[in-house]
Amino acid sequence: MTLDAAVSARLKRNADGLIAAVVVEHATSDVLMMAWMNDDALAATLATRRGTYWSRSRRKLWVKGETSGHYQHVREVRIDCDGDTVLLRVDQTGPACHTGTHTCFDTEERLLLADEKELA
Amino acid sequence: MTLDAAVSARLKRNADGLIAAVVVEHATSDVLMMAWMNDDALAATLATRRGTYWSRSRRKLWVKGETSGHYQHVREVRIDCDGDTVLLRVDQTGPACHTGTHTCFDTEERLLLADEKELA
Repeated sequence: MTLDAAVSARLKRNADGLIAAVVVEHATSDVLMMAWMNDDALAATLATRRGTYWSRSRRKLWVKGETSGHYQHVREVRIDCDGDTVLLRVDQTGPACHTGTHTCFDTEERLLLADEKELA
Repeated sequence: MTLDAAVSARLKRNADGLIAAVVVEHATSDVLMMAWMNDDALAATLATRRGTYWSRSRRKLWVKGETSGHYQHVREVRIDCDGDTVLLRVDQTGPACHTGTHTCFDTEERLLLADEKELA
């Protein structure tokens, strides 16, 4: 699977050849996770509608759910104004986070903002 | 403004000392933009409740809205499971995107998914 030339030309990749991918759950609009894509990951995502990323730790393509069964069915992919980030809307099977929580932002409490700190 | 040691210890910064910041509009849950923060930007955001980022192009702290007036009042900051991304919920004054659109993902059409392409 290769990326269309027109899409490829719109991407502003970082030094590692990656763009950021922000993943939102379609039904709830919850931000599920942030991940990275190289051209192959974006091409595979568009071609298969399965959320597919570049694993920086394993240095390989990673079909979300291939191990856990927690696949993402991709409904929409949008690119941002400067071409370094894509926004995916997905149907998420099971929890999105490898820790077992619904999103990757559920595990920690909120960081305290200044005026909250004063009240604490 | 310095970052609390407990917060600092939870961050996994990239080679440039940055974490990603995904910014969501509180009222609509729209993803407005993706930006970057160094420790100072996160500390300033928490201390002032104004969305503050690291401009990679200008190599300086950037208070969103300081030029445009399109400030972000920060309601919540969450850190993700592996500490390399924060999720902000904000009240956005005016458009979030420097192009004048509501979000940075509004300027381009959707990327075509495989089965849509076949239909086109």
